[in-house]
Amino acid sequence: MRAVRYYGKEDIRIEKIPEPECRDGMVKIAPAFVGICGTDLHEYQGGPNFAPKHKPHPVTGETVPITIGHEFSGTVKEIGRGVQDLAIGQKVAIQPSIFCGECGACKNNVENACPNGGFIGLSGGGGGLSDSVVVPARAVLPLPPNVTLQVGALVEPLSVAWHAISASPLTPSSIVLVLGGGPIGLAIVQCLRARGVGKVIVSEVSVARQAFARDFGADHVLDPRNHDLVATSQELSNGEGPDIVFDCAGVPASINTACLSVKPRGTVVNVAIWEKEIPFQPNMLVFREAKYLAVLGYQKIDFEEVINALGSGALKPSKMITQCVLLENVVEGGIKTLIAEKDKHVKILVEVAS
Amino acid sequence: MRAVRYYGKEDIRIEKIPEPECRDGMVKIAPAFVGICGTDLHEYQGGPNFAPKHKPHPVTGETVPITIGHEFSGTVKEIGRGVQDLAIGQKVAIQPSIFCGECGACKNNVENACPNGGFIGLSGGGGGLSDSVVVPARAVLPLPPNVTLQVGALVEPLSVAWHAISASPLTPSSIVLVLGGGPIGLAIVQCLRARGVGKVIVSEVSVARQAFARDFGADHVLDPRNHDLVATSQELSNGEGPDIVFDCAGVPASINTACLSVKPRGTVVNVAIWEKEIPFQPNMLVFREAKYLAVLGYQKIDFEEVINALGSGALKPSKMITQCVLLENVVEGGIKTLIAEKDKHVKILVEVAS
Ligand SMILES: NC(=O)c1ccc[n+]([C@@H]2O[C@H](COP(=O)([O-])OP(=O)(O)OC[C@H]3O[C@@H](n4cnc5c(N)ncnc54)[C@H](O)[C@@H]3O)[C@@H](O)[C@H]2O)c1
Ligand SMILES: NC(=O)c1ccc[n+]([C@@H]2O[C@H](COP(=O)([O-])OP(=O)(O)OC[C@H]3O[C@@H](n4cnc5c(N)ncnc54)[C@H](O)[C@@H]3O)[C@@H](O)[C@H]2O)c1
Ligand SMILES: [Zn+2]
Ligand SMILES: [Zn+2]
Ligand SMILES: [Zn+2]
Ligand SMILES: [Zn+2]
Repeated sequence: MRAVRYYGKEDIRIEKIPEPECRDGMVKIAPAFVGICGTDLHEYQGGPNFAPKHKPHPVTGETVPITIGHEFSGTVKEIGRGVQDLAIGQKVAIQPSIFCGECGACKNNVENACPNGGFIGLSGGGGGLSDSVVVPARAVLPLPPNVTLQVGALVEPLSVAWHAISASPLTPSSIVLVLGGGPIGLAIVQCLRARGVGKVIVSEVSVARQAFARDFGADHVLDPRNHDLVATSQELSNGEGPDIVFDCAGVPASINTACLSVKPRGTVVNVAIWEKEIPFQPNMLVFREAKYLAVLGYQKIDFEEVINALGSGALKPSKMITQCVLLENVVEGGIKTLIAEKDKHVKILVEVAS
Repeated sequence: MRAVRYYGKEDIRIEKIPEPECRDGMVKIAPAFVGICGTDLHEYQGGPNFAPKHKPHPVTGETVPITIGHEFSGTVKEIGRGVQDLAIGQKVAIQPSIFCGECGACKNNVENACPNGGFIGLSGGGGGLSDSVVVPARAVLPLPPNVTLQVGALVEPLSVAWHAISASPLTPSSIVLVLGGGPIGLAIVQCLRARGVGKVIVSEVSVARQAFARDFGADHVLDPRNHDLVATSQELSNGEGPDIVFDCAGVPASINTACLSVKPRGTVVNVAIWEKEIPFQPNMLVFREAKYLAVLGYQKIDFEEVINALGSGALKPSKMITQCVLLENVVEGGIKTLIAEKDKHVKILVEVAS
């Protein structure tokens, strides 16, 4: 079968490899659409980071080369023994989390923070960018009939946003500031709208992404280079500051804006992954008695809730898909396009079906 | 009357000033005992910080010199018109918070984070280190008969600890790590014991304070110079990390220990006030999906709950009082002793009664 294999920095090859076997408790999926995200770009431009290089991954036992593609939908191709409630041909989204099941995090149902964890399509265990991938039954989430396979590939990034929002004290009247209008910030805007929110303010430097933010339901879109974000977001929230700030930018300017603008006893939710240590003054939080919540990835419940919201029509994210390319074109049309024109795109999907 | 007046750095004078008048809605207190704390030392050694220097304080309208003493008990001396439920001679503790009542924080019942706020005894409005002080009726909290005026002067620092604990998700089985065994860390240890806790681990560098921590109810006392705090605190919590970490040290080492030791989805409560920006890597919180809560001061409910716990005997903090000096001796016997032998003391009280 075809598989897109990651060997290391700037080395991705489309190869023929043997089709994996569907063992007991597992399900063989024929991937349909696969989203490319910032993590894939990082692996390509500077990795391996996630992908296990020398030391085999503690759960999958694999090292590079590995098959990539962790944001994907597909159809059920084969059902392993002991697996119930699935039918051949069924449309599904894949929850790609890998975890050990034995550590403190796993035992406390925080398997998304498992120190031995990883992702199908990043850590071994196959990936979406191939003709077949065998995944545990628990990773397979049926899509309702009215949800397309294209949209099914968006469930993963939407679940990052959904999970972050679930950690926050959102109410239907909350005033929310979203810092960063990349794919994750834009997913947060859409999920806030789907769940009910009072007002959404987005701060983003890229003009192209500012337009996306407006399209996706932001009430106010501010350019942090032309606005005093702290003052303006407070004006837009009765002088008190936003109830919740999501940091989806992850730069020194955004953490400071988040901590200085949030209302007294408000909540900053950090969704960003940080490249390095930054200068930080905790008194910013102390003097407003604020909370700083960090979130990581998602859990099965987030996938389920996103899929329900897609089924009910509360979430209509198809305009996130700004381009679709064929598997053969994944590097040039997918990864390299995204690197070159990052802010013109929200999500590029790769179509696997040959 | 006598009053201890703060003029500026290393300039505290005991003076005769006119006795204040007891206006409507106010209560005149004869202070009995006054605790000295790190904030007083800061003002003495490097202030004015809290004390208004050039610009009059937005609520009190005063500038230095001001009367100091913000942690105090006393007896009711005169009751202003419209004040109910108080009797002359009654033993009380004073909740010294000053706030504007009009800002976003005040309107949201977070008056402890009022940007115009301050404290009686630091921001003008008189102070405990005088023969009389006139305070709003809401600041006056009766002490039960079995609570001494000495212990009444401990209600303030205990309320800082109580407030911090109330912000945390403490349960009777929580495993708690307290970083820093100064007066605040030690108050946290005692309040945890009073409220019910599974296990208390304290980290403190001073040998004298390590002994206090043991006396005050810590199950394990670790010296961070001889222990890998992250590893040891995880061993002491079934390999998972403490449920809650209180940072009462406020140094780069303590914030890192807090964020790296706390269990997945655990809570760091920052009680410290930070002198400067520090290097910080938010991923420490991200990779364990942890919360960082900042707390500030206290509210009336904290004073009430501490006083109830003192009345019931759940809190028995009298061993916090390591010395008592007369008002005339406040600088030499109080402030300078505390500066010279900081870690040999928990709380030095000043006795006001002449
Ligand atoms: N927690 C998780 O599980 C998880 C999952 C996926 C992504 N992430 C992280 O979330 C973050 C966002 O992901 P993304 O794919 O949208 O990234 P992205 O880089 O595409 O988007 C970040 C956006 O922030 C904008 N920005 C930069 N500085 C800004 C500033 N000062 N003010 C306002 N906007 C600013 C950029 O222009 C960009 O559009 C990244 O840090 C990523 O690593 C976390
Ligand atoms: N949030 C509030 O309203 C409030 C109120 C009062 C005090 N505070 C703050 O709380 C903090 C504690 O107050 P305090 O009066 O107990 O101060 P303190 O300076 O007496 O105590 C701090 C203790 O931390 C110890 N320490 C230093 N580095 C350490 C490390 N790496 N590991 C473990 N212990 C370490 C010191 O030896 C010291 O005993 C201060 O930052 C203070 O400003 C906050
Ligand atoms: Zn991704
Ligand atoms: Zn695990
Ligand atoms: Zn104090
Ligand atoms: Zn106020």
